[in-house]
Amino acid sequence: MTIMTPWHLQPPTWPEIEAAEARIRGTLRETPLLESERLNDSLGIRLLVKAEGMQRTGSFKARGAWNRLSLLDAAERERGVVAFSSGNHGQAVAWAARRLGVRRAVIAMPTDAPAAKVAATRAWGGEVVTFDRERDDRDALGQRLSVEYGLTLVPPYDDRSIIAGAGTLGSEVLRQADAMGARPDALLVCCGGGGLTAGCALAFEALHPEGRVWAVEPEAFDDTRRSLAADQRLGNAPGARSICDAIQTPMPGALTFAINAPRLGGAMTVTDDAVRDAMRVAAREFGLMVEPGGAAALAAILSGQRPGAAGIVAIALTGANVDGAVHGPIIME
Amino acid sequence: MTIMTPWHLQPPTWPEIEAAEARIRGTLRETPLLESERLNDSLGIRLLVKAEGMQRTGSFKARGAWNRLSLLDAAERERGVVAFSSGNHGQAVAWAARRLGVRRAVIAMPTDAPAAKVAATRAWGGEVVTFDRERDDRDALGQRLSVEYGLTLVPPYDDRSIIAGAGTLGSEVLRQADAMGARPDALLVCCGGGGLTAGCALAFEALHPEGRVWAVEPEAFDDTRRSLAADQRLGNAPGARSICDAIQTPMPGALTFAINAPRLGGAMTVTDDAVRDAMRVAAREFGLMVEPGGAAALAAILSGQRPGAAGIVAIALTGANVDGAVHGPIIME
Repeated sequence: MTIMTPWHLQPPTWPEIEAAEARIRGTLRETPLLESERLNDSLGIRLLVKAEGMQRTGSFKARGAWNRLSLLDAAERERGVVAFSSGNHGQAVAWAARRLGVRRAVIAMPTDAPAAKVAATRAWGGEVVTFDRERDDRDALGQRLSVEYGLTLVPPYDDRSIIAGAGTLGSEVLRQADAMGARPDALLVCCGGGGLTAGCALAFEALHPEGRVWAVEPEAFDDTRRSLAADQRLGNAPGARSICDAIQTPMPGALTFAINAPRLGGAMTVTDDAVRDAMRVAAREFGLMVEPGGAAALAAILSGQRPGAAGIVAIALTGANVDGAVHGPIIME
Repeated sequence: MTIMTPWHLQPPTWPEIEAAEARIRGTLRETPLLESERLNDSLGIRLLVKAEGMQRTGSFKARGAWNRLSLLDAAERERGVVAFSSGNHGQAVAWAARRLGVRRAVIAMPTDAPAAKVAATRAWGGEVVTFDRERDDRDALGQRLSVEYGLTLVPPYDDRSIIAGAGTLGSEVLRQADAMGARPDALLVCCGGGGLTAGCALAFEALHPEGRVWAVEPEAFDDTRRSLAADQRLGNAPGARSICDAIQTPMPGALTFAINAPRLGGAMTVTDDAVRDAMRVAAREFGLMVEPGGAAALAAILSGQRPGAAGIVAIALTGANVDGAVHGPIIME
């Protein structure tokens, strides 16, 4: 007997990413791809900066959420959805649910989620329930909420349509770079569960197979880096801490890791101090507020790490959802 | 005998704004025109937000500076330019001079200019000299520097090519809005000397004559509002204070006022508190750092002022050059 992998746990094809592009057009924003001569001069590379914090709901998560929720059938819309999220995925799902007329969006958030993210999720009409990041099993909780209320579970990364949606960031970067006469040798993105990384890796494979996507993780959450080295999924130590609230995931997803392992250029890690420095540089060079997790890829470049001998490097500033109480003191330093 | 007004003190024609559009293309950024459903819902209008703080050098001033300096002849480039500026115009002139191979850019800045603006002007290669905002006559100082070093004076607003360059913000907003299926009834811009206001008023006159441009000023620097009411140029009281460092000018320009008086929808004023609130909203809704003067137009809308019965209103967030030490405490409130 052959055990079939369910459809939603198989990698999306390139046409599915193209379909996601068509779905988000007009509703999501084509966020700017920026460049700073000052940064280029000081770094000695051409750096293309995707300002994805300006995306709807303030992060790239709107891409996957919109794509996934667009595929709900009428009965599923009538019942509603559930998502677990440290904040960005939850906001995106709540927003997409409201825009698409989905009746309910229950969002399970960790007790230590930033206040701004909880408030924003509620503002989009999300029903917030909380869980303990270390004691509770978030998959089990999601399943229970799903069964109890008949809600469709919208996973944050290990899902074919979520990955296809996230992949539109990669194809958008390549198309925008093309219009600027540039072809990035590498794209660096922050990596939690690996959905954005996987989607972008698939987009690069289709549009620019010589280019490589690199994952950037906080030092204490370097599960993808270690998993790539060991060629198997490894988790993070319990009790790990990082300023990057958005990318603190227990281990790579099964689907995302299967996509990433053979495709990534590699993985890099960044310290909290490097992330703070990147937040200051984003503010000064581009006038952008960037949340800690969203600044990880820029932090890698600013701390001297390079994706091989790349001359043109794209990075994504993936989110802007940072409390003023956190951002203020950092840019005041 | 007829006294002829010099060429550079006459209003630019629409073809000159179009020529400026062609000149800035590829070098300056087409900054995004954004929209927030949350803001639209709470305000009861459709608000289009021009994120011009993402412009080269962090403000709209790059438009006029690039246009003006592009018109220098070889001998003028070899000698250099001089500009007086509280910071944004100076940065823009220093940047444009470097990019265009102009030998020197001397920038006269007030002693109380924000540290970030002084540092950024120097970073673009500008030679900074300081003057006292209240005691020194900035026109006389500019003339003296111009004569002493043979430098071409690049005025901040009362100049035909500077106004034509600034006007490209207005035409760009109209073209971007058109692509979004919107036709703004009004465009609100912050107003210091009135160059941006005048340029946009001319662009609206050519492309959308039913639309109106409105000037927004700090309460203590409402010279354009009073001048429009009196139908003559009136100055501000000495010793006036505002958080909006970028738009503290002594009185409307002769040329800008001649353009604005018959064309503007009107003028509005905003308090420092309303400006701080607008800075917080720009951070929360769009992830954008906006400097105080750059937030004035948003502050007018948020404080309940409306340009007539307009249903679609565009505003410009005109600059992002704010010290972290100033922005931090405001967004932490």
